[in-house]
Amino acid sequence: MPPERPDVLDLATALIACDSVTPARGAVFDVLEAALLSLGFAVDRFVVGAAPDGPVENLLAVRGTAGPHFAFAGHLDVVPPGTGWTSGAFAADVRDGLLYGRGAVDMKGAIAAFVAAIPVTSAGTISLIVTGDEEGPATFGTPAIIDRMANRGIAPDLCLVGEPTSTARLGDMIKIGRRGSVNIWIDMPGRQGHVAYPQLADNPIPRLVAALAEIDAIVLDHGNAWFQPSNIEATDITVGNPATNVIPAHAAARLSVRFNDEQNGAALVQRIEAIVQRHAPAATVTARISGEAFLTPPGAFSTLIGDAIEAHTGLRPELSTTGGTSDARFLSKLCPVVEFGLCNATMHKLDEAVAIADLETLRDIYADIIARALR
Amino acid sequence: MPPERPDVLDLATALIACDSVTPARGAVFDVLEAALLSLGFAVDRFVVGAAPDGPVENLLAVRGTAGPHFAFAGHLDVVPPGTGWTSGAFAADVRDGLLYGRGAVDMKGAIAAFVAAIPVTSAGTISLIVTGDEEGPATFGTPAIIDRMANRGIAPDLCLVGEPTSTARLGDMIKIGRRGSVNIWIDMPGRQGHVAYPQLADNPIPRLVAALAEIDAIVLDHGNAWFQPSNIEATDITVGNPATNVIPAHAAARLSVRFNDEQNGAALVQRIEAIVQRHAPAATVTARISGEAFLTPPGAFSTLIGDAIEAHTGLRPELSTTGGTSDARFLSKLCPVVEFGLCNATMHKLDEAVAIADLETLRDIYADIIARALR
Repeated sequence: MPPERPDVLDLATALIACDSVTPARGAVFDVLEAALLSLGFAVDRFVVGAAPDGPVENLLAVRGTAGPHFAFAGHLDVVPPGTGWTSGAFAADVRDGLLYGRGAVDMKGAIAAFVAAIPVTSAGTISLIVTGDEEGPATFGTPAIIDRMANRGIAPDLCLVGEPTSTARLGDMIKIGRRGSVNIWIDMPGRQGHVAYPQLADNPIPRLVAALAEIDAIVLDHGNAWFQPSNIEATDITVGNPATNVIPAHAAARLSVRFNDEQNGAALVQRIEAIVQRHAPAATVTARISGEAFLTPPGAFSTLIGDAIEAHTGLRPELSTTGGTSDARFLSKLCPVVEFGLCNATMHKLDEAVAIADLETLRDIYADIIARALR
Repeated sequence: MPPERPDVLDLATALIACDSVTPARGAVFDVLEAALLSLGFAVDRFVVGAAPDGPVENLLAVRGTAGPHFAFAGHLDVVPPGTGWTSGAFAADVRDGLLYGRGAVDMKGAIAAFVAAIPVTSAGTISLIVTGDEEGPATFGTPAIIDRMANRGIAPDLCLVGEPTSTARLGDMIKIGRRGSVNIWIDMPGRQGHVAYPQLADNPIPRLVAALAEIDAIVLDHGNAWFQPSNIEATDITVGNPATNVIPAHAAARLSVRFNDEQNGAALVQRIEAIVQRHAPAATVTARISGEAFLTPPGAFSTLIGDAIEAHTGLRPELSTTGGTSDARFLSKLCPVVEFGLCNATMHKLDEAVAIADLETLRDIYADIIARALR
C-alpha cells in the first residue's frame, strides 16, 4: 500500500468522535495508528500502570533512522465534557466553518494537523510521542514514553509540542518554557485543652500562623527576561474545631508554588520545611512536585518556528512562558522543546471548537516546520 | 401552717428526681417553691424568652423587708446526663454515703443545703435568685431576674452563689472573682483565582495570617494579685478550599479571649477589630461577650465566709478567680458576690455524686454565713 496523506478535517473528526476522557485507551489510538501506518511509521503502542493513576495507553511512532530527528508530542486524552453542549461532546459536528467537540483544540486538532502535514517521504527521522494521560496525573503518560525511548535508543534533536498556545489568532504565541509547580502540605500537631487553662494545652495555630507569615514574606526572585517572578500561595488552612472553648489539637495548611528556572522544586520544599520545623519541630511537611521549570532559550528552534508561522499567517509569535504546566516539562529533558498549536479560547469549555481554516493553516505551518527542521 | 425547715437530703433528693436538663421549667421549681413557701417566703416564678434561647423559668423568693439583705443565687437546670450512669441520672440513688444524680453538686445539692439552712425566723431580709438557665446561653436567666429585681426595687447587700467551688475537700476554695470571656469571629473576603495567575486574584490567607500573627504577639497584661494574665487563643481557622490550584475567595478565624479585671470586653473587641481591619479593610469582626471580669476584693464578705467555713471544717479557703464563667458575672453588678459550694470533682460527669456528710456540713456552714451576714 503506497503512503497516503490523510485529510486534516477527516482525521480530526475521526479522533474527536472517539470518547477519550482521561486516561484514554483503545479506539482513539486505533484511528491514529491507522493513519500513521499508512504513512509508513513503525507504531509502538503500550499500556502501563494500574489504578488509581492508570492504566494508560501510550503511542510511540517512528519513521526513518538517520538524523536529523524531529519529534512531535501530544495527547489523545481529553478533560471530561460536562453537560450542556449544543450537540454531543463527541459528535464532531461542523457548523459555520467550525468543528465542534471535546479535544477540538486541546489537542486532537493539532495531532490531525501534524499527521496531515507529514510528507509522504522525507529525509531524517520523524517521530510522534502521544500519550493517553496528559490531563490527569501523567504518572504513566509521557514519562513512560520517555523511558521507552531511552530503552530503545530513540533520541530526537528537536521536539514540537502541539498544545494550544495561540490566544486571539493562530500563531500569535508559542511557549518556549513553563514554570515549575509544587504543592506542599503542612501538618502541625498540638495538644487539645480548654481555653480557660491554656497552660495545660499546646495550641498549634500560633505556630502555624507564624510559619505562614514567614513563608509569605519570602521573595523567591524577581523574575527574569523570560519568566515572571516565582510565587508562593497559601491555598488552604484547616483546623476544624467547632467548639469555641476548646484549644484545637491540630492545624494544617497547603501551599502552591509556581516557580521559574531560577528555582528548583526540591530546594523550595527544603526551604519551606526548614521554616516550618523551626516554628514546630513536630510538624510534618509533604510535597508533590508536578514539574520543574524549563526554558528553551530563544534561538535557532524558536526562530525556525516563528519563521514558519510568519510565512503562513504574517504574525510573528510572542515567545511566552506563561500558564500552567504541560508535558513539555518532561520532554525538555530530551532536547530543545517548543510548544505551538491552536487557539486556546475554548479549551476545557463547553462547545470547544476549532476553525476549519485554522486546522488547515496549522497543517501548512507544521509541514513548513518539518521541512525546515529536516533540511 | 407554722414555718418548717426541710431536711437537706430529702430536699436534694426531690430536686434531683426532677429531670431539669437546661433550660429548665416546671416540676423542679414546684419542689423548691413548696419548700420556700413553708419557710414564709414570697415566691415569684416567671417564664421568659422564646426559642432558641428560651423559654426559661426563673424564681425570685424574698422573706423580710428590712435590712441587711442577704441573697443566695443558683440554678436548677443541669447539663445533659449522657449515657452510662450506674443507675439513672435522675434516680437520686444513695449508695455508700453518696447521693448520686445529675445536679448533685452542680448545684441542686447546694440549693437544698441553703434552703435547709434558713432559720425559721431571722432579722433582715433573705432572698433566693434561682434560674432555669445557667448551663445554657443564660440569655433569659439570671439577667432577667436582675431586671425584675430592679423593677421591684429589690437590692441585696451581699450575694452568695452556690456553685461547686470546692476541689479536694469541702471548703478548700471559694471564688471571689471570675475572668471575663469573649468569642470573636473574623471573616476575611478575597477574590478567587488560579494559582498560576496570582495577579488576577486576591488571596485572603496572607492577610488573615498577618493579622493573627500580630494578635498572637499581644501581651494584654501580666495578671495581678488576684488574676492570672489575660489570654487570647485562636481556636479555629477555616478556608475550606479543596482545589490545590485555586486561590481561595474567603478565610475565617475564631478567637477566644479570657480576660481579667484590667480589661473589658468591648475594648478588647475594638482592639482586635482595629488590627484586622488594618490588614484587611473589607474584613468583618463579630463578637459575643459572655461576661466581663469581676472581682469582689478580699475583705469583710470573704472573711465572713472564710470564718464560717473554718469554724465547721478547720480549713481556711483559698480565694480564687480561676475557671470558667458563672452567673456571678451578672450578680456582681448588684453587690459584693462570693461563690462557695460543694466539691466539683464529679460535676458534668457520669455518676455525679455528693457525700451526704458534705451536704450536711454545707447546710451548717450556710446557716452560719446567714447568721453572720444578718447579725
